Amino acid sequence: MSKRSIWPVVITLTTDFGADSPYVAAMKGVILAINPRTRIIDLSHQIPPQDVQYASFFLRACIPYFSPEVIHIAVVDPGVGTRRALLYVEIDGHRMLAPDNGCWTGLMHKGSKPATVLRLTESRLWRQPVSSTFHGRDILAPVAAYLSLGEDPRNLGVPFEEWARLDIKSPTTKDDLLTGEVIFIDHFGNLITNIPGPEFERICKQPVRITVGDQLVTRRAEAYAESDAGTPVALISSMDILEVAVTNGNAAKKLGAGVGTAVSVQVISHSRPDA
Amino acid sequence: MSKRSIWPVVITLTTDFGADSPYVAAMKGVILAINPRTRIIDLSHQIPPQDVQYASFFLRACIPYFSPEVIHIAVVDPGVGTRRALLYVEIDGHRMLAPDNGCWTGLMHKGSKPATVLRLTESRLWRQPVSSTFHGRDILAPVAAYLSLGEDPRNLGVPFEEWARLDIKSPTTKDDLLTGEVIFIDHFGNLITNIPGPEFERICKQPVRITVGDQLVTRRAEAYAESDAGTPVALISSMDILEVAVTNGNAAKKLGAGVGTAVSVQVISHSRPDA
Amino acid sequence: MSKRSIWPVVITLTTDFGADSPYVAAMKGVILAINPRTRIIDLSHQIPPQDVQYASFFLRACIPYFSPEVIHIAVVDPGVGTRRALLYVEIDGHRMLAPDNGCWTGLMHKGSKPATVLRLTESRLWRQPVSSTFHGRDILAPVAAYLSLGEDPRNLGVPFEEWARLDIKSPTTKDDLLTGEVIFIDHFGNLITNIPGPEFERICKQPVRITVGDQLVTRRAEAYAESDAGTPVALISSMDILEVAVTNGNAAKKLGAGVGTAVSVQVISHSRPDA
Repeated sequence: MSKRSIWPVVITLTTDFGADSPYVAAMKGVILAINPRTRIIDLSHQIPPQDVQYASFFLRACIPYFSPEVIHIAVVDPGVGTRRALLYVEIDGHRMLAPDNGCWTGLMHKGSKPATVLRLTESRLWRQPVSSTFHGRDILAPVAAYLSLGEDPRNLGVPFEEWARLDIKSPTTKDDLLTGEVIFIDHFGNLITNIPGPEFERICKQPVRITVGDQLVTRRAEAYAESDAGTPVALISSMDILEVAVTNGNAAKKLGAGVGTAVSVQVISHSRPDA
Repeated sequence: MSKRSIWPVVITLTTDFGADSPYVAAMKGVILAINPRTRIIDLSHQIPPQDVQYASFFLRACIPYFSPEVIHIAVVDPGVGTRRALLYVEIDGHRMLAPDNGCWTGLMHKGSKPATVLRLTESRLWRQPVSSTFHGRDILAPVAAYLSLGEDPRNLGVPFEEWARLDIKSPTTKDDLLTGEVIFIDHFGNLITNIPGPEFERICKQPVRITVGDQLVTRRAEAYAESDAGTPVALISSMDILEVAVTNGNAAKKLGAGVGTAVSVQVISHSRPDA
Repeated sequence: MSKRSIWPVVITLTTDFGADSPYVAAMKGVILAINPRTRIIDLSHQIPPQDVQYASFFLRACIPYFSPEVIHIAVVDPGVGTRRALLYVEIDGHRMLAPDNGCWTGLMHKGSKPATVLRLTESRLWRQPVSSTFHGRDILAPVAAYLSLGEDPRNLGVPFEEWARLDIKSPTTKDDLLTGEVIFIDHFGNLITNIPGPEFERICKQPVRITVGDQLVTRRAEAYAESDAGTPVALISSMDILEVAVTNGNAAKKLGAGVGTAVSVQVISHSRPDA
C-alpha cells in the first residue's frame, strides 16, 4: 500500500451535492481541521442526484489521469444510512473512498490487478457522533484526512469481498452491426457512447450507416470543427470511444438524443457515407 | 486573538456572485497577489443573489466544521456602497470578514462567548482606489490576505457594537403543537426546517401528526433510504434539525413545498403515524 | 521571461467545459501528476460554450488582479483539432496558455509592452498520444505543469506573429452622443457596457439622456443600493466602465436587455435626468 508522500497530499471531491450546498463546504471543513496542510481539489459537485451510473462514467473519465498518491472521495450515495458498506479501494494504484455502490468498478479494465477493497470499520477515525444521513462528512472526510496524514490503509477496516459491481452496458456486436447507446452528454451537447473506438474503427473498414435513434449521422471526422456548422459527425473522442457531435452546435438537441438513446453502426454495401 | 500559523493559512470564499462571474476570480487574484502561499477554498458562489437569510443558513451549516485559524470571507451584500459597515468577526474561534448584514450571527449559540466585532477602517490594508460597487475585491479580499500573512486583527479597525443581527425564525411550541417552517431546500429536494431535533424528539414521545403545508408526512425514519421509494419521511438531519425527505425522490416537488412552507408536529391521541 | 518562484506556482483554469464535466477533472489530474506541488485555482468553467467574446471579457475582468508568476490556462476552443495554433503568451507580465482565438488580446491596453507570443511546438512536453478533440488535457495542461516546475518558456515553441486578435467593439462618440452596447450581464442581471467610465463622465458634464434599448435610465448613482428599489441606475462599475443596474433588482429582466443591446448617452439641453 502507499507510502507517505513528502508533499501535502491532494484529496479530490466528487459529489452530487450541488454547488449551492453547504454539505460540500462541511466536508472541506472536516478535512482541513484534521489535516490543515492537505490540498482539496473539486472534481465536480454536479453529478446528477443519486445517479451512480453517471458517477461511474465521470470517475472513469478522469481518475486515470491522476497520480497514485492522490486520495479520491466520491459521494453519490442513495443508500446512506442503510447497511451498505463504505469502502476504501485501491485500483491500479488509485485510492478511493466511496459507498459500496459500484461507482468505482468502471476503473477496472483488462490489465488491472485485483483491487484492494476494505470495508471501513475503524470508527476511532470517524467524526462522532456519526449521523445517519451524512457519512460523507462523518466518515469519508475524516478517513481521507487521516490517510493524507500517512495513516496506513490497513488500519481503516477489514478486507471486503462482496462489493457491488456496476456493469457498464456493453455494446452488442454482430458481424455487420454494432449497437450501443448514449451514456453521457457533455456540456456542449456531444453524445458520448459506450462503443469503444477500436470496435468502431474495425467495423468502419467497410462502408457503414451510423444512426442515433432514428437520425442519420452522415459524416465522420477527426475533430469537431472539421465539417460545416450544423453537421452531425461521428468521431473517436478523447476517451477513445465513439462520440457524436454537431460542428458548432449541440448534438443532443439537434438529434433529439438523451442518455440511453440507441446508437448503431451498420455495414452497408452500396455506398460510403463518410466518403 | 489568533496567533500566526506555521501552515499556509486557508481563506474560504462564500459569495452570491455565481460560478460564471469574473468577480470571484478577481478576488482570488487580489488575495494571491498579496499572499502567494495562502490556499483558497471555495465554499459556494451560488448563494441566491442578495439572499442574506440563505447565506446565514449556509454559514451556520458549514463554518462550525472548520478549525479556528481559517479565515472566511462571505460576500452577500445588497448594501454595497452604502454606509453599512464591513466587519471582522471572531465567533467561537472562527474568523470571518463580511458586510454588516447579520449573515454571521446565526453562528452564535447558547454556549458562545461574546463575539469580537471590529469595523474595518484601516484603509492602508485596502486595494486603492476602492470602488463603490465591489468591496469584496477592494476591501475584504486584501484584508483577508494580510490576516493570512499574520496581521494582527486589532490593526484592521475599531471595535463595533451596533452590528446587525439576523434573526432566525424560531419555531413556536404549545403543549401539543410544534410549528416551524422550511428554511432551506437542498439539491436533492430535501426540506430543512427550523425545528431543532431535540424539540422534535421530545414531542414525538407521544403519537404525532406531521404536516408540511397541507401534506401529511406519515413515516419517520433514521435515514433517507429506509422506506419505500416515494414515501415522505421525517428525520433528524445531519445538522440535528427536523428534515423532510422523500425516499429516492424530491420532497420539495412531491409535497409542493418551498422556503417558508409551514411545518407542524401535532400531538394526537388515537394513532401513531410512525408505527 | 519569468524566473522560478520559491512558492508552489499557481495555475488557474478558465474553460467552457461546465461544472458537471469530467474534462476539467482530467486536466487537473494531468497537471498534478506532473507537478504535485502546484496549486490549481478554478476561475470559471461556466464560460458559455465556445463563446470566445465572453471569455475575452471574463479574462479582461480578472487576470489583471493576479501577480505575474501565476500561469493561466484558458480553454474556449471551437477550433480544437483544426490547424489553429496553441499559444504561450506573456502580456504585461501575465502568463497565459490558450488556443489562438484572440481570447487574451483584450488584456492589451495603451500602456502595454508588445506581447511575447509563442506557438507551442515542443511535443516532448505534451501528453501522448495527443487526441484531436481535447488539447486542453493533452497539450495545455502538461505545458502549464512543466512551466510551473520552472521550464523556460523559450523551450515551449517558436515565436509566432500572426496571432488572432479579437476586437472589442468600441463605443462611437460624436460631439453630443456616446453609443455603445451591453457586452456582459452578470449574475445579478447588471448590464456591463463597453463604454469606458472616463468617456461617460466627460459627456455627463452636460445634462444627458441615457437609454438601454428603448428604455430610459433616469438615475445616476455611485452604488447599487443608493436609489429606491426597482430604479434603473447608471453607474461606473468596479471595472471602470458604464454599468446599468436596478436597485435590489435585475436590470436585464427589468429593461429587457441582453448582450448586444444598444446603450446611448445623449446630451440634452433642457433638463438633467440625473438631478
